[in-house]
Amino acid sequence: MTDEKIEDLGINGYKIIQNKRGFCFGSDAVLLAKFAKVKKGCRVLDLCTGTGIIPVLMYALCAPARIDAVEIIPWVAEMAKRTMLLNGLENEIRVINADLNKASEIYGKRCFDAVTCNPPYMPGGSGIVNPKDDLAVSRHEILCTLDGVVKCAADCLKMGGRLFMIHRADRLCDVFSSMRKYKIEPKRLAVVYPKSTAPAKLVLVEGLLGGGAQLKLEKPVLMYDDEGNYLQNITEGIV
Amino acid sequence: MTDEKIEDLGINGYKIIQNKRGFCFGSDAVLLAKFAKVKKGCRVLDLCTGTGIIPVLMYALCAPARIDAVEIIPWVAEMAKRTMLLNGLENEIRVINADLNKASEIYGKRCFDAVTCNPPYMPGGSGIVNPKDDLAVSRHEILCTLDGVVKCAADCLKMGGRLFMIHRADRLCDVFSSMRKYKIEPKRLAVVYPKSTAPAKLVLVEGLLGGGAQLKLEKPVLMYDDEGNYLQNITEGIV
Repeated sequence: MTDEKIEDLGINGYKIIQNKRGFCFGSDAVLLAKFAKVKKGCRVLDLCTGTGIIPVLMYALCAPARIDAVEIIPWVAEMAKRTMLLNGLENEIRVINADLNKASEIYGKRCFDAVTCNPPYMPGGSGIVNPKDDLAVSRHEILCTLDGVVKCAADCLKMGGRLFMIHRADRLCDVFSSMRKYKIEPKRLAVVYPKSTAPAKLVLVEGLLGGGAQLKLEKPVLMYDDEGNYLQNITEGIV
Repeated sequence: MTDEKIEDLGINGYKIIQNKRGFCFGSDAVLLAKFAKVKKGCRVLDLCTGTGIIPVLMYALCAPARIDAVEIIPWVAEMAKRTMLLNGLENEIRVINADLNKASEIYGKRCFDAVTCNPPYMPGGSGIVNPKDDLAVSRHEILCTLDGVVKCAADCLKMGGRLFMIHRADRLCDVFSSMRKYKIEPKRLAVVYPKSTAPAKLVLVEGLLGGGAQLKLEKPVLMYDDEGNYLQNITEGIV
């Protein structure tokens, strides 16, 4: 596989297999893994796992008991499985190739303490993008929608379980709407700004299944400081 | 009226009458007046006007054709009227003593280009607060609710008109929910942080009646810089 490269994550000696054709993790995965504070020993489901970056980082940062991870593109799921083998994490992080809309049938309802998701960011895709294009599937709402992701989380979470999601800032209202629709109340929001003088690009949201209304809006998350130093390395400045 | 004081606003020579028993404007009014960019010559309705601070500042900053302002507490409305006389703005800013839930009956539907509101922030008030306590009425949702304010705005705005609102950060999800319920789509959000390392306290939201989904999440609004300098004076750093 000549398009593959292996990157050292700089934490616990873990590595990740990526594919240069576009399936490489970005800063959004790092932001979500740092934002998703789950308790040691709990059970986590990662939707739209892609390379499996979020489960690996979460395992390093929070040590959940077990993470199940779902990826719809067969060869990407297979690559993520090899990453778990490479790290000796194949028992702790179980990747499957499946449609997340089937997750509650596969795992059963109310089984997870936490669900994480870095979903496709771009709405729709009607006509503009090719549904057979794997990269388009990972970026556009072709095979799953924001609403579908939240519904899946609501089905799979235990009552009192938490959904941690990253999304584009311009979709914040859609994220909140879908969460409330499925009784996952937004409890924590962190806005991600490229720098202190620029509009936000991303939002990190934590919702509580069955929770009551009251949002904590955390301090701003900056990607770069005023001198242009990158602030969101994996091991620094945990949100 | 020994509890009254007159403050110079430092813009266009305008002054404001306040009452030391609690009816003094705060930084939230200044933030909202700076955030609410309305076109010169348009017609504006300010709900929960209190001392009338927002209409006076908006008149100085944006020069709308006319601002109608509604205040439910009789003596506070009367004080705001005297402020307009003091500034020679009694024709440009018309304060009435009324319940905002009657605004669309009083003014007619679809008459305003913009609605502004700095509403009571605290939810409910059931049993805890005295509805005859004027200060409680101005701070708790006793005589008007967030949902009622947004409904009133939706009734009074022209199609394509804009609602500008400031609220507590922990109610952001409620603000978005009520807006969507009445077809006022949130189009612009600015998060107000006390300083760069603290959680947000306030949010400024602009909604468009009949607008489509897509939010612009503006650069962070800081009350103080890292050296402790206050950044939100009326004439500086317009949001």
